[in-house]
Amino acid sequence: MAAARYPWPRDTRSALCVTFDFDGEAPYLWRNRATGGDGAAELEQRRYGPRRGVYNVLGMLDELRITATFFVPGWIVAHHPAAVREIHEQGHELALHGWCHEPPTELDAVRLSDTLQRAVGALSDITGVLPVGYRSPSFQMTPEAIDVLIGLGLRYDSSLMGDDRPYRIGDLVEVPVDWATDDAPYYRYRAGDPRPPMPAGQLAAAWATEIDAARLHGTLCMLTMHPWLSGRPARIDQLTQVLAGVVADPDLWVGSVAALAEHHRLLGPPDPTGVSGWQDVDKDSIGWPDDNT
Amino acid sequence: MAAARYPWPRDTRSALCVTFDFDGEAPYLWRNRATGGDGAAELEQRRYGPRRGVYNVLGMLDELRITATFFVPGWIVAHHPAAVREIHEQGHELALHGWCHEPPTELDAVRLSDTLQRAVGALSDITGVLPVGYRSPSFQMTPEAIDVLIGLGLRYDSSLMGDDRPYRIGDLVEVPVDWATDDAPYYRYRAGDPRPPMPAGQLAAAWATEIDAARLHGTLCMLTMHPWLSGRPARIDQLTQVLAGVVADPDLWVGSVAALAEHHRLLGPPDPTGVSGWQDVDKDSIGWPDDNT
Amino acid sequence: MAAARYPWPRDTRSALCVTFDFDGEAPYLWRNRATGGDGAAELEQRRYGPRRGVYNVLGMLDELRITATFFVPGWIVAHHPAAVREIHEQGHELALHGWCHEPPTELDAVRLSDTLQRAVGALSDITGVLPVGYRSPSFQMTPEAIDVLIGLGLRYDSSLMGDDRPYRIGDLVEVPVDWATDDAPYYRYRAGDPRPPMPAGQLAAAWATEIDAARLHGTLCMLTMHPWLSGRPARIDQLTQVLAGVVADPDLWVGSVAALAEHHRLLGPPDPTGVSGWQDVDKDSIGWPDDNT
Amino acid sequence: MAAARYPWPRDTRSALCVTFDFDGEAPYLWRNRATGGDGAAELEQRRYGPRRGVYNVLGMLDELRITATFFVPGWIVAHHPAAVREIHEQGHELALHGWCHEPPTELDAVRLSDTLQRAVGALSDITGVLPVGYRSPSFQMTPEAIDVLIGLGLRYDSSLMGDDRPYRIGDLVEVPVDWATDDAPYYRYRAGDPRPPMPAGQLAAAWATEIDAARLHGTLCMLTMHPWLSGRPARIDQLTQVLAGVVADPDLWVGSVAALAEHHRLLGPPDPTGVSGWQDVDKDSIGWPDDNT
Repeated sequence: MAAARYPWPRDTRSALCVTFDFDGEAPYLWRNRATGGDGAAELEQRRYGPRRGVYNVLGMLDELRITATFFVPGWIVAHHPAAVREIHEQGHELALHGWCHEPPTELDAVRLSDTLQRAVGALSDITGVLPVGYRSPSFQMTPEAIDVLIGLGLRYDSSLMGDDRPYRIGDLVEVPVDWATDDAPYYRYRAGDPRPPMPAGQLAAAWATEIDAARLHGTLCMLTMHPWLSGRPARIDQLTQVLAGVVADPDLWVGSVAALAEHHRLLGPPDPTGVSGWQDVDKDSIGWPDDNT
Repeated sequence: MAAARYPWPRDTRSALCVTFDFDGEAPYLWRNRATGGDGAAELEQRRYGPRRGVYNVLGMLDELRITATFFVPGWIVAHHPAAVREIHEQGHELALHGWCHEPPTELDAVRLSDTLQRAVGALSDITGVLPVGYRSPSFQMTPEAIDVLIGLGLRYDSSLMGDDRPYRIGDLVEVPVDWATDDAPYYRYRAGDPRPPMPAGQLAAAWATEIDAARLHGTLCMLTMHPWLSGRPARIDQLTQVLAGVVADPDLWVGSVAALAEHHRLLGPPDPTGVSGWQDVDKDSIGWPDDNT
Repeated sequence: MAAARYPWPRDTRSALCVTFDFDGEAPYLWRNRATGGDGAAELEQRRYGPRRGVYNVLGMLDELRITATFFVPGWIVAHHPAAVREIHEQGHELALHGWCHEPPTELDAVRLSDTLQRAVGALSDITGVLPVGYRSPSFQMTPEAIDVLIGLGLRYDSSLMGDDRPYRIGDLVEVPVDWATDDAPYYRYRAGDPRPPMPAGQLAAAWATEIDAARLHGTLCMLTMHPWLSGRPARIDQLTQVLAGVVADPDLWVGSVAALAEHHRLLGPPDPTGVSGWQDVDKDSIGWPDDNT
Repeated sequence: MAAARYPWPRDTRSALCVTFDFDGEAPYLWRNRATGGDGAAELEQRRYGPRRGVYNVLGMLDELRITATFFVPGWIVAHHPAAVREIHEQGHELALHGWCHEPPTELDAVRLSDTLQRAVGALSDITGVLPVGYRSPSFQMTPEAIDVLIGLGLRYDSSLMGDDRPYRIGDLVEVPVDWATDDAPYYRYRAGDPRPPMPAGQLAAAWATEIDAARLHGTLCMLTMHPWLSGRPARIDQLTQVLAGVVADPDLWVGSVAALAEHHRLLGPPDPTGVSGWQDVDKDSIGWPDDNT
């Protein structure tokens, strides 16, 4: 049962979303919310993002005429409003990423809803529009969180890895991600971590291969990056070279996650390629020969 | 004592088995059988296998005219029967991989036998034939499990690393594996894992070297892959390029594990290359000078 | 808000600092101060630094006519005075790195001040001048430690990652570092560590990319190395090749951290590129919708 | 104080020792001596060494006319005598590696001495000569173990990393090792390990760089390998290509560790390059300003 080709926007053959999780200090603050952490080292490392990285990123996007999506925790919106405003004014999408980078697996539904509503307020105060999408911190997700997102009226989520093209989860459109095109497993290094950052040239070569494969297979390449990581000079240079080589391809659609999600929604349910979306698992079906399956 | 050349089928000089552990959700369900786990993220990541990856794999095998072996947990057979049926109809071998990816080190002999019998039923309901081989989840093994496999009438196991050609373990033929040609240590990445996925181009280069060495040494190259990992576009492309370069070699035998195991069985005991098979270790022989060795 | 170009010394376009944390035995002794550790293996591994590595490093610096900065724990000064004297006599800067490589996160302010004063004494006994800079062991830092450094009259710190050019933290100049240009995450391997050392050629290629990016972006590349790691033959050769290719560039400033810090101080506050320095975080601002932010 | 060139044997300019730790099952048996372990998987993986790997290694050494040193636990001598005999008959050195791969950090001096005497007996029963050297399992070492080695009349140890040429530790000659030229951190992978095996081509390129650097610097390159790891086809091929390119160099001395150790002993104390050997550390010198240093 070979899958039908996915009908990308504007009759293109494949798609690329360039996205940034603009985390800054938030993940450190969340992890150390009980004690405050022991200091300045990781905070300063992360502040490279709002101080420099995000502007390097915006420069690259402007040079390459790419419309990107930035997922921004509410805390970052509140503490770095000038950077967030500049993202908005350059025409990029702003979307939700928790209040202080809280994974939905660590909050109950009420708390999750409260933090997201607060983040909606912070973002819309700057942009004048309501955000329509969400990416979960650390790509974690629960069935309850899906319901919260739908309950808040959001149009899409971009946190799961169940396909290489958009798909439906009930009323939500899922625009999927992939660890292999997330910079964090490759570039994030904090004191004591077990592996060093990958050289920028090696990751750029890997991502060029990923984008080429998406173009060949007619799939989506979703790049997930972080200004405090990919915004550093050597990495932004290598990334720029990779992207400059593909954005001129008229058969490759490049745009915001919101635009792709709305495109998918217009295709209507059921999924045009015949793949059903996410569903819960009957835990009783797992185990032993005396189970009922 | 240089080893005699192994007599590969059809007078070839070396052998390649292309195999897939079609795990899907099963390992996650097994690990989280007590609590159910915290959600959707890893489940969705793994579902890429049955939704897309396995069809990408089947497309590649068809294009290259390779007969492969798929080791499939019974739970996957029960929940993704269409995919399993398509594997069978394209002429590939289907073999055992537990009911829900249970390593034999975590079950007693009765439980192991029960789960495997249940999986035999699920597979033969689709294929109409009894599976003849087993691969243990995570390549774990115990002496008791070997006895269970023999007791079930299985013809081969493909889980151990004691040689680079088939060998006998009592009535069983062992068709050995190797971590260096398993995609999981290179490609598997879940939230919090300590290392990122290797770029597809780097692993493809490594495996080209592995296959070339098998051809030079007259040994077996056993590729172990997972549709949720190697089935993604960039990886399937890189793999296709590597395999396309070797399947045309008339001196390289390519086929199912069952076919190779039966070939080996016909050579008869003792092992034609003079290597005795697996045996237990006398634990009293290990230690101190006052032990009896 | 694109950042203004930083005005590097002598009207150059970018800067390179070549620095060494001359740790030797000290980190091992500090980690094992309670029990003494179990022996000779890591001690001998680290002694390669004072025995050979530091002389290989000095030979390279002399050949390339580079003025470097060496951060040296006081214990190393006391136990390897000949090597420290030779560093000084070849015209390199000597600066503080704790007494026995104690991270400031593990000392209170009084202890930290005492150990640093002791180290100031050991260094100035050899050089005849007071050290003006500090690098924290393992790049750890606390707000209290910043105050200690200022209280001791130091002119700069070189431990944080908040920018890619010098910046001010109160009366202190911060000359920032980066994990991607620190050899320890790549080369350090001790028994049982989870990853092997990166091949010297791979890291040299990575650092060539880093230096090229600094030249393109007009930023600082701060190399942090350790004689017991980068002083080994294959690594020093690869590094020499990379540095030989850039030190002739008249647009790249190369010099000691102290010289760069003093240059920055003369530019005066506020930061000429408009980036405010490090500040503490209001921990109450982190969390929940009922917090006051 | 640039070091004098080391006077290598036969007026060569640098040296290469090709050595193998022929561990087989022993490390697994030692680690699991209390419970016996859970089975067959790692045992079979390690048995690739005595079954195939060691013969692939011997074939390569014969082809390249290299005299190597094999460090063999006594348990392996007792259980794989034919392989050990073939190593001896091909003219390679056999030396000590514990009885069952016990690190000296886990035994008291009496136990260590007893296990080594037992291993001396097992080896000399096959070779007819007493082994003269020792390599510690996992490169661990204690001051007490050094005394045991001297007390047993051994001539050299090859376990420490304090230099890149032989050096004296009292009556013992140390022929040093280096993690960067040990195959275990790169190739060893067991179920659940945090990193995958490095591709053989990447490690071969790294070691070619290491050997070239030794030739340039006039130092020793000590390769430490394991038949169950480096004896596999792709790895032995890549290694053969690297070594074939250097063994013809008349300025590179290649030989057994014993031969190099005896050469060094004849140079007499003190160390001709002015480097003192290993010594214990005064633990009271480590810490605080009120300590006596």
